[in-house]
Amino acid sequence: MRFSCNVAELNNALSIAIHAIPVKSPKLILEGILIEAQQNAVILTSTDMALGIECKIPAIVEMEGSVVLPGRFFCEVARKLPGEDVRISVNERSVASISSGFFKTSIAGMDALEFPELPVVKGTTVTMTEKQLRRMLNGTLFAVAIDESRPILTGCLFDVDGNDMSIVALDGYRLAICREKLENTFDASSHVIGGKVLGDVAKILNDQDDEVSICFSRSHVCIRIGENMVIARLLEGDYMRYKQILPTEYVTRIIVNRMGLADAMDRAMLIGRESKSTLVTFKVEGNQMTILMQNTSMEEKIEISSEGKDMEIAFNVKYVMDVLKAISDDEIEMRFKSNVSPCLIYPTDGGDQYLYLILPVRV
Amino acid sequence: MRFSCNVAELNNALSIAIHAIPVKSPKLILEGILIEAQQNAVILTSTDMALGIECKIPAIVEMEGSVVLPGRFFCEVARKLPGEDVRISVNERSVASISSGFFKTSIAGMDALEFPELPVVKGTTVTMTEKQLRRMLNGTLFAVAIDESRPILTGCLFDVDGNDMSIVALDGYRLAICREKLENTFDASSHVIGGKVLGDVAKILNDQDDEVSICFSRSHVCIRIGENMVIARLLEGDYMRYKQILPTEYVTRIIVNRMGLADAMDRAMLIGRESKSTLVTFKVEGNQMTILMQNTSMEEKIEISSEGKDMEIAFNVKYVMDVLKAISDDEIEMRFKSNVSPCLIYPTDGGDQYLYLILPVRV
Repeated sequence: MRFSCNVAELNNALSIAIHAIPVKSPKLILEGILIEAQQNAVILTSTDMALGIECKIPAIVEMEGSVVLPGRFFCEVARKLPGEDVRISVNERSVASISSGFFKTSIAGMDALEFPELPVVKGTTVTMTEKQLRRMLNGTLFAVAIDESRPILTGCLFDVDGNDMSIVALDGYRLAICREKLENTFDASSHVIGGKVLGDVAKILNDQDDEVSICFSRSHVCIRIGENMVIARLLEGDYMRYKQILPTEYVTRIIVNRMGLADAMDRAMLIGRESKSTLVTFKVEGNQMTILMQNTSMEEKIEISSEGKDMEIAFNVKYVMDVLKAISDDEIEMRFKSNVSPCLIYPTDGGDQYLYLILPVRV
Repeated sequence: MRFSCNVAELNNALSIAIHAIPVKSPKLILEGILIEAQQNAVILTSTDMALGIECKIPAIVEMEGSVVLPGRFFCEVARKLPGEDVRISVNERSVASISSGFFKTSIAGMDALEFPELPVVKGTTVTMTEKQLRRMLNGTLFAVAIDESRPILTGCLFDVDGNDMSIVALDGYRLAICREKLENTFDASSHVIGGKVLGDVAKILNDQDDEVSICFSRSHVCIRIGENMVIARLLEGDYMRYKQILPTEYVTRIIVNRMGLADAMDRAMLIGRESKSTLVTFKVEGNQMTILMQNTSMEEKIEISSEGKDMEIAFNVKYVMDVLKAISDDEIEMRFKSNVSPCLIYPTDGGDQYLYLILPVRV
């Protein structure tokens, strides 16, 4: 194999592929990155078996071929290459000679035949923008279950119905839903993808309007982002029927400044830390809400606009904070039914782009 | 005690005082910060016994008094205060009530009488700018000995002679000297201050032209930076006579681009890491220098301008890198006598603002 390519393009592809390279694996080959030179392109493939990534960059290929190089080390070397281009040639003993500018070195590689092949994924394909998928993932991922007692809840549900797509996460204490409209209409279908894998996907996505396609087969999902492809295995099992647990009535409704409330939660968490308190109380009295932190003398008042009955309700402060950080709106709407019923958090414009539910704590 | 002060000014002072608050101390009181309200100011004092810091900020004092609050926790709370001003009042049980904006809380404090007093330091006082002291410390601190077998070498020598001041560090493998001209003339004197303490001092100093005064007593040094005061104990013992080990002759002299060489050293360290190599060879041949990394296939050529004989010399790559990072000049001059004699590094303008010496490794 012998090719040369642009260093910036190589680094851009590697910064994506690195997400599927395990730091340590019992199978040494998985710590590597597969480099294949074909026609006028180089394909970089990495996988930790849960997640697979394939990136393609243009290259001048003098001799086709393939090799597996130590993944993280190769990424580090590539990042420090001095020239605009790099030339890589691999001999029959899988040793890669790398030269760029006035610098040259060699790296011992492994046989490409040992590298596992990524599955081919075919099925229903929905499209949206990178930005949309990114918003939905960042808006829900925090709420997946950490506890593995119900493995299906450690993933996010991708729920397609007509021209609606929702991503849902819940862990028994809170629930997060983010929605987007699709351009086309699809039969109802739902699939669950692991939270860890989606965390890596979210890191790869940029805040831009480029198209992303998401293709679901029975066992896998394939997400195409430009010349890059991310493949993950679906989680098996039935997801919770989340629509049934969403309350439809409320007694109190408040509108509050998101950053103001987030700053107050930040202070509450800090003050609570010393006495290991996690419980924050919201006391709604007309257009003022008093925030109290359990077992501390902390008290903070914030202005709200409220509708309905005054009330008092307590939450795990972290659950409130997680929601506030996941939203970017200036203001949010919170709806309460009683101090033992879940609180719902909506956009103030009446839209359905997100919906959060937090269970209160009885005091 | 009861006072109010500006939150930004308080945070600025705390960001300095925190450097002398130990994360954990067998004496709980040292984890605290002493807060004294006097006349129209508040004085914040922290010490880990090796280093003491005192900061003064303007305040509206309604009742004079003092308290010791848990240091790092108080810093965190202060950083998150919502208002422009904060009001602190302490009751007879040393509980501080803190309020700012619509937020209030209380923190349990300790009796101020238990807090150790900082020593009063009187003696020769030299002055320079913050920027100058910062440059000299950052330019030498990396070279202090880590190994405590000769404790005096774990500090920096402050060498005052006439209107010259040098700061010197050496660890047996390399030596660093940074010099500044003083406005006044002083009798020759030298003092050694611990490297760890000076590391904290360097972090406090800004890159600005404000005056700093450095006062040496027999046992302590006191550095005044605006309204802030840093006090440290001097190290006892005789420092090495470093002037005797500086070679005066050379056979080869090269001028090299500092960043270019630093980038090459960065690559050499990365490539060497895999084979645990630390030895880099410089091969000077006319106006080209070839860089080779031991036990690797790495080779890099860089352009230099050279004078004198061609030569080959090897160093610990980290020692070369440390010097290159400590300098901000575009180009540097390196002088070699033989491949077993120390290499000297000078500014290319012939000045004496810095001088570095690195011992080569025989190969």
